[in-house]
Formats: sequence, C-alpha cells, structure tokens
Amino acid sequence: VEASHHGSIMEFGLRRAHGPNGALYASRAAYIGGASASSNVEAGYVFGIPIRGTMAHSWIMSYPDELAAFRAYAHLYPENCTLLVDTYNTLESGIPNAIIVLKELKAAGRKGFGIRLDSGDLDFLSKKARKMLDQSGVSEASITVSNELDEYIIDHLVHENVPIDKWGVGTRMVTGGDDAALSGVYKLAAKQSNGELLATMKLTNNPEKMSNPGIKNTARFYDKYGQALADLVFLESEKEALGKSIQNHNPILFHHPQIDYAQFILKHYTQADILLQPVMQNGIRLQEKSPLHILQKRCESSLKSLDSTSKRLLNPHIYKVSISSDLKAIKKDLIKSRTH
Amino acid sequence: VEASHHGSIMEFGLRRAHGPNGALYASRAAYIGGASASSNVEAGYVFGIPIRGTMAHSWIMSYPDELAAFRAYAHLYPENCTLLVDTYNTLESGIPNAIIVLKELKAAGRKGFGIRLDSGDLDFLSKKARKMLDQSGVSEASITVSNELDEYIIDHLVHENVPIDKWGVGTRMVTGGDDAALSGVYKLAAKQSNGELLATMKLTNNPEKMSNPGIKNTARFYDKYGQALADLVFLESEKEALGKSIQNHNPILFHHPQIDYAQFILKHYTQADILLQPVMQNGIRLQEKSPLHILQKRCESSLKSLDSTSKRLLNPHIYKVSISSDLKAIKKDLIKSRTH
Repeated sequence: VEASHHGSIMEFGLRRAHGPNGALYASRAAYIGGASASSNVEAGYVFGIPIRGTMAHSWIMSYPDELAAFRAYAHLYPENCTLLVDTYNTLESGIPNAIIVLKELKAAGRKGFGIRLDSGDLDFLSKKARKMLDQSGVSEASITVSNELDEYIIDHLVHENVPIDKWGVGTRMVTGGDDAALSGVYKLAAKQSNGELLATMKLTNNPEKMSNPGIKNTARFYDKYGQALADLVFLESEKEALGKSIQNHNPILFHHPQIDYAQFILKHYTQADILLQPVMQNGIRLQEKSPLHILQKRCESSLKSLDSTSKRLLNPHIYKVSISSDLKAIKKDLIKSRTH
Repeated sequence: VEASHHGSIMEFGLRRAHGPNGALYASRAAYIGGASASSNVEAGYVFGIPIRGTMAHSWIMSYPDELAAFRAYAHLYPENCTLLVDTYNTLESGIPNAIIVLKELKAAGRKGFGIRLDSGDLDFLSKKARKMLDQSGVSEASITVSNELDEYIIDHLVHENVPIDKWGVGTRMVTGGDDAALSGVYKLAAKQSNGELLATMKLTNNPEKMSNPGIKNTARFYDKYGQALADLVFLESEKEALGKSIQNHNPILFHHPQIDYAQFILKHYTQADILLQPVMQNGIRLQEKSPLHILQKRCESSLKSLDSTSKRLLNPHIYKVSISSDLKAIKKDLIKSRTH
C-alpha cells in the first residue's frame, strides 16, 4: 500500500495461502493493512471485505478464440469488466481484442472496465497498453497488473511512473514470501506469589533475547505535526507519575533496552498516547468490537504518524522503543540476582 | 529428515504456522515426509500422528528455582521426560540441575529421559552436554535440540558429528521459511468439443511457462538397483504402445520439454512405473484410502529411489523430466497454429 503510494491494492492470494483459514485471515489482515479488496469470496462473506476478481487464463483457453472469450465474459459481467490480455500475445492479440470489447461496453454505457496484465515486463507493457487504449477512445479503461508482485516490485514500477491503476498482490502478501513467520515469542513477565504479582524475566547470554520484566505499558510521544517521536515501555506502577509528567510536558528519560550507557532525554513533545488499553476485565468485554473499516483507518493513521524514513524499504531508519528508568532498575536487579 | 541422516525429527511448528488449519496440514505433511512426531495435539487427535513435546521456558520461570521446576515436571511426566536446560545458564545451572533429576528418574526405573537445548551454539553445547551426562552416569539420556532449525543447520551440525538424538523443527518446516509458497498453477490441458477432448495449452513468450497440452501420464524408469533414471511425460493415447515398448525393453526416446534439439535415448532400464493411477471414476472411489504411515513409507521409498546427488542441498543434480515424441509433436503443432 505504501509502495503503491496508496494506490488500489487487491489481495489475490487464496490459492497460495496456507490452508483456507490462513487465506481467510490473510485477506482480513490485507484489508486492515490498506488493501481495497480481496479475490477471496469467503472473506467477503465472513468479514464483509469488498470482493474483486478477473478471469483466469483457462476461461480464455476454453473458447475457440480470445475475442469470443472476452465477449462471453463481458456479457456475464458487464460492470467493472476486466479482461486478461496475456494468454496468447499481449500486444498483438490480447490488447487489440480487449479494445474491441471495451468499446462495445463503452457504447452500452458500462463503467469500470479495463484490462489486466499478468506476465511480461509490466513497465513496458503498461505504458504500451495505456497508449493503445487512449488512442482507441477508451482512455477511461483501467490497467490492473499482477504476477508475483511484492512491495519491492511495486516500488520500482511506481518510480518508473507506470500508468498502473490497480495492483493484484497474491502469494507474497498472504504467505510473507521470503519472510513467512513473525519470530514473536511469549515469555513470562510476572508470577503470582501470595496474591502479589512479582516481576520475572528470561535471562540468557544473548542480551537481545532477554525479556523485559513486569506488568508493562507503552507510551508513544508525538510532535506538533502528529509525527511519532519514540515509544517508552514503562511499568504499570509508573503510570500515574508518568501521566503527570506528560501533562506538565516535563522532560522524560529514555533508556536503551539493552545497552547500559545509551539514553536520551525527550524534551519537546506535544502529546503522548498510552498504547495498551484494557479490552477485557474479569471475563467482560470493556469496549465494543470495532468494525473492520475502523481497524483499517486506525492502521492507516498509525502508519501515517511514522516518519517516511522509517518506512523506507532499504535500510529504514529504526524507530526507537526505549524503557523507563524504573523498568531498567528492576531489570538490572533481576539480572544481578540471577548471575551473582 | 535427509539432512539428519534419518534421525528423529519432531515437528514443533504450531505456534508459527499460518492458522490452525495450516498448522494441522503442516503436521500431516511433516509426518508423511518422515517426521516421527508432532507437538500439535490436534494432529494427534485428527490424524493419529504420535505426539511429543517438552516444557516451555515459562514453566521453569514460574517456579522459584530451576531444580524445583524440573522436579515438578518429572513428577507429572516421569516417562520420556525431557528437561529444557537453557532458561538461566545451560552449562552452569541447566545441565547440572537436569542431571540431578535424571538420576532420580533413572533410580526410579523410568525410561526415555533426556534434555533439550534451545539456544546457544548447538555444536559446542551438545558435545559438552553429552560429556556431562555420560560422566554423571546417565549416558542413556537423549539430547534434543531446537531453535529455528532447518535442513541447512541440521546438515552442518551432522557434519560436525554432534551427539544429537532428536531434532525439534518448527517455523521453517511449517511455513516454508524463505520459500513459503509452491508456485504451481493449473492450466487448461484439454477441452471438450462435441464429446471429444481436444488438447490445448497456454502459450506465452516465456517457454518455461508454456504448459504441456493434452491428457497425460508419466512413466518413471528405474535401473536394476531400483534407482530412478528419468521420467517421461506422455499422452494417455500412447499408453498401450509405450507399455509394450517397456515390456520388450525397447530403447525410448526422451525429449527436453522446451529445447528442440535436446533429446536422449534411454537404452538400459530394468523397470518402469506408470505414476498416475485413477483414484476416482464417475464419482466412485477406486482405491481404499491409505493410512498415513503407508503414505510415509511411500514417500520414503520414493525419495530413496532418487540418487543422492539429486537430494544435495547445494546445486543438486537436476533429475530429468522429459516428454514423449507424440506429446512433443502436438505441442509443436499447437504453437505453430497459434503463432503463424
């Protein structure tokens, strides 16, 4: 979504997802992340996600010729009709045949029609296709592309100023491609002892893998433009004092989560949000369930508050997540008590 | 399984799989592929796959000390008790504490006990651990390892002659790691016209992406040692003639699926199997469903029939899958008819 400069991303991943359940939740995640539609009809049924799709190559191959296949499809789906032009020869057969049918649709007053490119050099072909469509009087026809797209390919194409209107993204979005798992773990942060919650943590020789002990929350600090400056992980027991400091716009001390001498003082900030809010207490839901389009909006505004340098695909600027002085103190105490 | 030299592979991937359904079928696939067990209890319930597991770090952290945690676990699971030794300090605390409890289990006549290493240098630590266990009179204790294992890591460790008995493989097996999707597609191979099936194919400028037309089958040829020599994709209409040729041990002509002049004649072979067998006809199942352990055996013997050079992780020898003369002929005809 970012790479396409908030263009129209359609999630096309069902056939390559890890099982029907993996596909369904990938469609949901894609929609929350900013995709405008999915080709997964069940995701439309279960979550109300808008459904979009185009024809398969087998549709075209099942007809004696490409033009007949396009006409039959346009007859069945006259609105938002997208014709797949790369079954035989994109420039010599697919686009010319599509133009014939798109002109017929236009004459009949139909809207939302276009073509889809699914192979070849999408930079070269989309520019050629745009020219051919414009010169044939169907300049309103949209160009959709697909074919193993990911954020890197989209980013490169956008930099080449391609006239692409819609992006069908499948496999690499729904499976994670070369990064198919989030290496998150849960670790015990506190344990109950005589009715009290005592902080605990995982110790290891690898400082990166040490967990932060205790019952925690996180505050996100913003500047006057609404840009996120840094996050501070703190103990719930510090919440009131921290809240007052924030209200008074006092300077706040941030510590690096592992490196002892790395710290900074945040002096200028306009606002801070507490990120973790209770959603359930004693088995009772405290907030209404948010509809999916609200989650999508929330995701969009969260991402917008991140500086663009943190969203760069190559060597992004690392957004700082620090720990509070109290959290650092109990972490050091626990390490000391276990290792000395 | 291959990399461990047919050691004991346990599938530990549930928490990182793509949804419960993805996890369940990953467990099934892992078992068919030669894993001996799964940590996914539902896979045991649904498919009868043997279930194995060990404790979590949080189990140990929930006790005042490591030894108490080990004792409590051994009390609950005295058989096949595997103690996780890397929560605090593997060599100075984890293994010494485990040895105390393993000796107690041994004295009580329990079997199948051992330790699990989940972090650090598994080569160094497994050798140290083996020595410590042997010198403490629990040489029967097994060593299990885990921690983002894949075939490359296992292969390297096995080459270092590590004393590892069991491998817990999770994320990278159930998600595919950096190769999370199989880029298979279905293409129309034939269409019905007046009750007849006519061969058809996908044409494209990319020869690798051209499909093979028609109703096909595949024969696999073996030498006298049962090693697979090559596969031949042929048209169902050639089946009888090919069967006779094979029976008479006639030489068979193999064509490269894309490159025109690349061909070879297979003169010496002992046996050939037809790989595709009908399993359903007119909605009726023709064969009994095979139980999972039979599928596992079939997979094992199929892999065994492949030369080890084809199973090498780095630059494997490419096993040849060729097409028959008749298939090549109709493929060329179809390409000609579409492009001239």
